[in-house]
Amino acid sequence: MTERPAPPVLASPRSERVRAARRLAGRSARSRAGAFLVEGPQAVREAVAGHAPGRPGAVRELFVTADGEARHPGIVAAAGAAGVPVRRCTDQVLAELADTRTPQGLVAVCDLVDVPLATAVEPPPRLVAVLVHVRDPGNAGTVLRAADAAGADAVVLTDSSVDVHNPKAVRATAGSLFHLDVVSGVPVADAVAALRDAGCAVLAADGGGDVAVDDLAGAAEAGTGSLTGPVAWLFGNEAWGLAAGDRALADAVVRVPVHGRAESLNLATAAAVCLYATARAHRPRR
Amino acid sequence: MTERPAPPVLASPRSERVRAARRLAGRSARSRAGAFLVEGPQAVREAVAGHAPGRPGAVRELFVTADGEARHPGIVAAAGAAGVPVRRCTDQVLAELADTRTPQGLVAVCDLVDVPLATAVEPPPRLVAVLVHVRDPGNAGTVLRAADAAGADAVVLTDSSVDVHNPKAVRATAGSLFHLDVVSGVPVADAVAALRDAGCAVLAADGGGDVAVDDLAGAAEAGTGSLTGPVAWLFGNEAWGLAAGDRALADAVVRVPVHGRAESLNLATAAAVCLYATARAHRPRR
Repeated sequence: MTERPAPPVLASPRSERVRAARRLAGRSARSRAGAFLVEGPQAVREAVAGHAPGRPGAVRELFVTADGEARHPGIVAAAGAAGVPVRRCTDQVLAELADTRTPQGLVAVCDLVDVPLATAVEPPPRLVAVLVHVRDPGNAGTVLRAADAAGADAVVLTDSSVDVHNPKAVRATAGSLFHLDVVSGVPVADAVAALRDAGCAVLAADGGGDVAVDDLAGAAEAGTGSLTGPVAWLFGNEAWGLAAGDRALADAVVRVPVHGRAESLNLATAAAVCLYATARAHRPRR
Repeated sequence: MTERPAPPVLASPRSERVRAARRLAGRSARSRAGAFLVEGPQAVREAVAGHAPGRPGAVRELFVTADGEARHPGIVAAAGAAGVPVRRCTDQVLAELADTRTPQGLVAVCDLVDVPLATAVEPPPRLVAVLVHVRDPGNAGTVLRAADAAGADAVVLTDSSVDVHNPKAVRATAGSLFHLDVVSGVPVADAVAALRDAGCAVLAADGGGDVAVDDLAGAAEAGTGSLTGPVAWLFGNEAWGLAAGDRALADAVVRVPVHGRAESLNLATAAAVCLYATARAHRPRR
């Protein structure tokens, strides 16, 4: 019996394969290649679990160190079984690819996750989060993760929002960007029109809203109001909220009440409250 | 008529006054001096509004550039009227004091905000957030801001949690740390005992909880269950949640349901949902 030869290990951070992957940290390179970087076991596990060649988010290749494979053998085995090319590499190569100091030995290159707006409204969604002019990647990723947890079908990032494939945004989603339809780069008016056509009530979340989300939730308990049916929420920029023109596109402007003395709510906090109020209204009470 | 002489302007980042303030970016210096740094108009405005000599969070001095005073004359005037020493300084001095690139010309030195645990339970609070082993300053500050918005009376950071006076934590609170009682450095068991003695139901937020927060909210609508009275919520570490021993201190372990495929919720999202569910249960419905 002879031992199998060890697979070749990528050792040079300057190899073209590594440099090409590294460039995906930048938006224009991602756009040209149609691919982005996913790091760490949680996100890579979700990417591999959802992998299908040609589908959004498909895994093109997985870079893994010896330590990464020892710690996460199931993820590497699942990638191999799904036909994903697995590139063994040194710690130095992985560090070159990773945005964080602790990627735990795993970085994947995946196809971009976006789908066309038409895909996200067919079949008609029940709950959608629309991020309008959201610029901070951490905030965008956090809202996407909260939307997934609340059972949303889709998240739309309008044309003036951050790229959800930005490494910081990807990290903040904790794998959730592989769980729901993600639409990028559409004008807010187009998103609103398509979602309304699909049957959604369009609600703008804004601190100056005419109606409190608690009152909508109370109405939903009585079986009435906009939270009982499909809803698309518009969430605005972290610093200045929604522009008047964007608020005007909605059927109603809804506020999360500030009971204490806080001047305003953080975007992710407001989104969590609105999305969960809707999730609760959509589900029968025990 | 003679012109008044221009006030002296601090121009040297190496002066002892500036260096002493700068050192407050570090925890041990804060602890020795009993003071911390507050930057930017939003937080400084709240500090000045709540200023009373000898009270927690009192403003010791305000550093302001010419540009800062031009942009925020009301804050500087209010500080002066309240007897706060106002130090005019150059942009270079302010940059030395600030943690961010855009402090907008204002940095205050304030007394630490903490109060003893005994103060936070007298009079008995209605809503309290207890942060247990929360290590990330941004997360701690975000939860404190959400707690303020939800009308909480106090936030407790247990002895293993981050210092709320850390510049990143201060920034994430957006001024809310001047709005409610903040308790630091107490063992979680002591906090739970004091809050229970003060009449609070103690609820641990945990993804593996036996009861869903929606069911507690539903019970509260019917006038029963723990959300109808005073509540102290325990929130755990951002990565690994609450330890079994800490969960065991609570009256109940409560989960925020994950309706979608997200593996878990981000700490701030879970806290926002729990705190707002309680705020809603505490308030009469229209």
